[in-house]
Amino acid sequence: MTPRPEHRFTFGLWTVGNPGRDPFGEPTRAPVDPVDTVHRLADMGAWGVSLHDDDLIPWGTSPAERDRIVQRFDTALKERGMGIGMATTNLFTHPAFKDGAFTSNDRGVRRAAIGKAMRSIDLAAQLRAENYIFWGGREGTEVGAAKDPRDALERYREAIDVLGDYVVQQGYDLRFAIEPKPNEPRGDLWLPTVGHALHFITTLARPDMVGVNPEVAHETMAGLSFHHGVGQALWAGKLFHIDLNAQRIGRYDQDFRFGAEDLKEAFLLVRLLERAGYDGPRHFDAHAYRTEDAEGVWDFAAGCMRTYLALAERARHFDALPEVQEALAAASAPELAQRSTDGAGEADALKAESDGLDALARRGYANERLDQLVVEVLMGLR
Amino acid sequence: MTPRPEHRFTFGLWTVGNPGRDPFGEPTRAPVDPVDTVHRLADMGAWGVSLHDDDLIPWGTSPAERDRIVQRFDTALKERGMGIGMATTNLFTHPAFKDGAFTSNDRGVRRAAIGKAMRSIDLAAQLRAENYIFWGGREGTEVGAAKDPRDALERYREAIDVLGDYVVQQGYDLRFAIEPKPNEPRGDLWLPTVGHALHFITTLARPDMVGVNPEVAHETMAGLSFHHGVGQALWAGKLFHIDLNAQRIGRYDQDFRFGAEDLKEAFLLVRLLERAGYDGPRHFDAHAYRTEDAEGVWDFAAGCMRTYLALAERARHFDALPEVQEALAAASAPELAQRSTDGAGEADALKAESDGLDALARRGYANERLDQLVVEVLMGLR
Amino acid sequence: MTPRPEHRFTFGLWTVGNPGRDPFGEPTRAPVDPVDTVHRLADMGAWGVSLHDDDLIPWGTSPAERDRIVQRFDTALKERGMGIGMATTNLFTHPAFKDGAFTSNDRGVRRAAIGKAMRSIDLAAQLRAENYIFWGGREGTEVGAAKDPRDALERYREAIDVLGDYVVQQGYDLRFAIEPKPNEPRGDLWLPTVGHALHFITTLARPDMVGVNPEVAHETMAGLSFHHGVGQALWAGKLFHIDLNAQRIGRYDQDFRFGAEDLKEAFLLVRLLERAGYDGPRHFDAHAYRTEDAEGVWDFAAGCMRTYLALAERARHFDALPEVQEALAAASAPELAQRSTDGAGEADALKAESDGLDALARRGYANERLDQLVVEVLMGLR
Amino acid sequence: MTPRPEHRFTFGLWTVGNPGRDPFGEPTRAPVDPVDTVHRLADMGAWGVSLHDDDLIPWGTSPAERDRIVQRFDTALKERGMGIGMATTNLFTHPAFKDGAFTSNDRGVRRAAIGKAMRSIDLAAQLRAENYIFWGGREGTEVGAAKDPRDALERYREAIDVLGDYVVQQGYDLRFAIEPKPNEPRGDLWLPTVGHALHFITTLARPDMVGVNPEVAHETMAGLSFHHGVGQALWAGKLFHIDLNAQRIGRYDQDFRFGAEDLKEAFLLVRLLERAGYDGPRHFDAHAYRTEDAEGVWDFAAGCMRTYLALAERARHFDALPEVQEALAAASAPELAQRSTDGAGEADALKAESDGLDALARRGYANERLDQLVVEVLMGLR
Repeated sequence: MTPRPEHRFTFGLWTVGNPGRDPFGEPTRAPVDPVDTVHRLADMGAWGVSLHDDDLIPWGTSPAERDRIVQRFDTALKERGMGIGMATTNLFTHPAFKDGAFTSNDRGVRRAAIGKAMRSIDLAAQLRAENYIFWGGREGTEVGAAKDPRDALERYREAIDVLGDYVVQQGYDLRFAIEPKPNEPRGDLWLPTVGHALHFITTLARPDMVGVNPEVAHETMAGLSFHHGVGQALWAGKLFHIDLNAQRIGRYDQDFRFGAEDLKEAFLLVRLLERAGYDGPRHFDAHAYRTEDAEGVWDFAAGCMRTYLALAERARHFDALPEVQEALAAASAPELAQRSTDGAGEADALKAESDGLDALARRGYANERLDQLVVEVLMGLR
Repeated sequence: MTPRPEHRFTFGLWTVGNPGRDPFGEPTRAPVDPVDTVHRLADMGAWGVSLHDDDLIPWGTSPAERDRIVQRFDTALKERGMGIGMATTNLFTHPAFKDGAFTSNDRGVRRAAIGKAMRSIDLAAQLRAENYIFWGGREGTEVGAAKDPRDALERYREAIDVLGDYVVQQGYDLRFAIEPKPNEPRGDLWLPTVGHALHFITTLARPDMVGVNPEVAHETMAGLSFHHGVGQALWAGKLFHIDLNAQRIGRYDQDFRFGAEDLKEAFLLVRLLERAGYDGPRHFDAHAYRTEDAEGVWDFAAGCMRTYLALAERARHFDALPEVQEALAAASAPELAQRSTDGAGEADALKAESDGLDALARRGYANERLDQLVVEVLMGLR
Repeated sequence: MTPRPEHRFTFGLWTVGNPGRDPFGEPTRAPVDPVDTVHRLADMGAWGVSLHDDDLIPWGTSPAERDRIVQRFDTALKERGMGIGMATTNLFTHPAFKDGAFTSNDRGVRRAAIGKAMRSIDLAAQLRAENYIFWGGREGTEVGAAKDPRDALERYREAIDVLGDYVVQQGYDLRFAIEPKPNEPRGDLWLPTVGHALHFITTLARPDMVGVNPEVAHETMAGLSFHHGVGQALWAGKLFHIDLNAQRIGRYDQDFRFGAEDLKEAFLLVRLLERAGYDGPRHFDAHAYRTEDAEGVWDFAAGCMRTYLALAERARHFDALPEVQEALAAASAPELAQRSTDGAGEADALKAESDGLDALARRGYANERLDQLVVEVLMGLR
Repeated sequence: MTPRPEHRFTFGLWTVGNPGRDPFGEPTRAPVDPVDTVHRLADMGAWGVSLHDDDLIPWGTSPAERDRIVQRFDTALKERGMGIGMATTNLFTHPAFKDGAFTSNDRGVRRAAIGKAMRSIDLAAQLRAENYIFWGGREGTEVGAAKDPRDALERYREAIDVLGDYVVQQGYDLRFAIEPKPNEPRGDLWLPTVGHALHFITTLARPDMVGVNPEVAHETMAGLSFHHGVGQALWAGKLFHIDLNAQRIGRYDQDFRFGAEDLKEAFLLVRLLERAGYDGPRHFDAHAYRTEDAEGVWDFAAGCMRTYLALAERARHFDALPEVQEALAAASAPELAQRSTDGAGEADALKAESDGLDALARRGYANERLDQLVVEVLMGLR
């Protein structure tokens, strides 16, 4: 239950630095110095941090001041052996992006957005970031008539392709991950789910360079099973990064502490990540409740990591229990890994087997037993 | 407003034949003879019908009886010049499929499911169906621990690949379309959205042969914009078929009359389909409210077609109005079709342009004006 | 963790008897004899059962056969010392109720529904039921224009008032509870939430006789906090009965095993019920997954009770832990029980105190710490 | 289609004055002077405006400056003959309210909140406001363990009762209306729906003085039928005020232009309000999309009013059409206004009538025809 760097926990500067502003209220906490964040998280056993360009370097900073800020931050990283799990560019806060960034109807905005991303990629490379994320927070519509979806997707593809070329040309060791979200702050966003993003990647000029960054809150807003979506990303070899937090279905973007909602889904997620050998950052893209003072923020951060570790331990224990192995066998879970067919020339056999459905209907799958074991292991009853 | 065959309207046998049974109630209407459906729909101006194997040939029918049924049905089709927009196999009603069909944990069930699909493909080919649909109604979980998502997707892929091989081996002129759905009747279904299905298709052995069949109700259950999802399918060249109906977000699968919910989204959809030159079937996968008697069913069917035609007319009118063209220009909508960049070697220029965000923020996009025009055209006020 | 009658666990005949039919599939399990249910549940430590009239006496049964069935069932109840937590009438399965029962537009249907309820009340009284429930499964609309909401609510009120008079006239010792639900099987139901039902009760001729029967799944479908809704019912003295199960937000009515979804909400619910001294039945209105065979049904039933008992034990443990008491104090939770004002004549003082908001903003509420303690107690880590 | 004062349209100062800030972005528009708002809205035909205390008088303003602001504003109102449909107090923006206002766990915050409301009530009375609204934007929880729901509701009741006493003591001619909302900005809010608020009112010391202020967006977030909720409020005589806007189900609080989403529900709402003779303000609690510049804001405001008037005209036309009257008769809609029973002593007759269900099941209710007429009238096709 004690976080250590090998657990690869990371936090965004904007997460523990979140001041508690929301659409209806002013900040409840003071800003946090990114360098202090590095030290505090290092003390707590995190592996690294992540950032938007503007988290570190406020928009409008002069080049000289920028260099000073980056240097000071990099020094702190090096002192503490902290890494950058991901960097990204903020293409949503500035009012110029109100109609989109890469998919704004205004070509000038699109170009400025690509340029801002290039500068931010330079920063990411300078800070040795592992992943470079694209979250298209303003890429969408409230008014469907304003954008042809085909044009918008074409512009999105163009932007990612141009930026991929840029990375290669610069010789940066950086890969991209796309972070889907269904809505908020726009009425509907392009690439609303992991599935849409996975498909989009296949249309790119450099598909191998690009993966996904699924976020618990984002898939959950649409009521989708998060571990199913992550499963499809893993199956495709595309889980480059992951954003951990908590969310209730069908609500505003909550970004609660990991594990604060839907503990069973969190268990299934952690079990899947650990079984799949996912070795990327465990990134918490969440923030403390607005009720919290400065100390509550660190309770929040500690809670995220403790819950992940506890779930990982429970997942290992679950899979080791004899009664679980029996229930999995009764559910025929291992049998799903076997091929259904033996090769060509089976058509007649398969058709004939379809006459046997009535007999095949008789068995049960012991799913109640299995799921109750999940609940009982999760509650520490076994 | 008068449906004609060139409008390509189709209805599933199970739609106008829906007897009004639901999870809490017994049927309120008598079964309908598929041959009568063909005649009635032909009278009403539909282009064709669609079917599951078991809609036409009840499960358990003897081969001889099967042939008689098919012959009689085919005769009616030919007499009336009606086509089959799509055929599919029912892999969800029989209790053997309770844990899935292509992704059941039981290998025997998986094999029987593939065999049943093969027989149904034979029927589809015999009846000259344009598309063969896969809706994985039982492919999912309530109990996440019972299936590794990677295994399930692998089995799903195997099944589609085996069936693709079968079609090619048989020399059938048939293409596949996958119909996504997020949940119901399972807790969570694999391939929950258009995006997940589009990605899945890229992993198949014969991706060119397979497209998607998006359904209004299914994407809408998850609160996703339907016309955005269809837009991504069109952009990918993968809109092979479409299921039209109506649904409120976050509810049980309602399958209401096309246009009965969210008229603006229906307008945006029809406008997109017509502008994109979609020439596949306009398929109504819906049913009359359970309150209806036999005559209400035909009110339902007529309403689906009338609303589509009215929306198509309004969409044409919308695009022709000078005030709409002005509002689109004020929104820079046509500018989204232009490339953002001019080619290689622009990095420095693009970075420099990102300094101009403050100036780019000043303009508005006239989206209120544009959307109000949508509302007013939709209401016949312009 | 061993259920005993004093825990007051009850199951509907239709729950363990659910055959696994759903909108897309046929039954996967055989029917269960109600008398066998009584014996099996008594063996497992339940306190009683509950029933719709038609669960015990299939629609269309002759009076003589009805008496024989009731007698045999009552004998089993008495032999095993099992009680009836609630009885109700099925006003949703018969096709006559397709437009509603008490609020059907057809006056004849409304009268038949009231008459059916009277007969069912007679049965409830005969079997010594504690509560008589009204769930208006067909009381609603898909087509808003078909019913004026004010008329529908007036008819609903009339029906409950007439039936209340009937109970009093017959001298039955029976109270009513209304079960809200937002939608399904109708597009929108009247009395969609606990709040609407609580208000409706205040408009009745005999409000003291009527309470609510909240169901986890029903409030959760609408994304409402279940324990908040139950809290309002308890606050009003109106929690007469409760339906326990599990549900994901924004989905078809799932009725999963209690605790199978949203374990934290289940914990908060059980803690509230136990702290409030709720002494009515703990009624499981849920059913086994359709994947289950006959034995899985009893795994399901055992799981419901085990999880409730485990949560109750955890809730007691939570409230006893010193660190929890400290966190509750840091959150000022006990202070919420104090009056805010001291009586009349405080207006000037209160206005003056509003000048002190800046100082009042400085404190934190330690909600992260408190919620993390919930998670850790729930997981057995403390 | 031309708004006039008798239509009673009002806009909040914060609506047309919304600067386009959201959780992810900075303002896109400049602040608007409330006096300019009065003039502009008067020019457009609105009846009045509404306000929070802090909309007019920024928090922290000196008493002298306050008087100057109020005087200047009141002069504008009088010059233009504009009324105040409602006034309220902002108990959500200041960080002191982060844990709630009337239901904060901190008694000092609760007292300050009541005091702030008293001062705001004084302002409301001074400006001759018709209604005084309570929206409990911070009255709720993310962490259920932090508040006993019964305590929170008790404190809520205490606050409203104390403020009701204050109004009476001051001799103000002002009535209260409670505005429910399910969530956002808190995880879960007390009084989440119209139903919960209607019930809460029955528990107050002065229930006659208090009604509800339903908002389209708020009920819709939870997926509830808005016109059903308004119907229950009208039925109870409690529709004191109404907030008109547009929202998609299961999303962040969107507050779109009235009619921008779910046009059929908007039609059903307007039809109900007009048929019921609702004579309170038609208040638009909405704002322009963030894409808009200053001029787009007035397009937004004009659109809200135009759509309301168009829907009202369509509703009158709908009810006047012979084919609609026929369809309503076929649905037996008028029959729902008739009593179901004739008085006491009918029990035996009613029971006997329940034997006639099979015959009652045969008829249909022509709901497809009726709903299609709604669509066609809404589209101007009839």
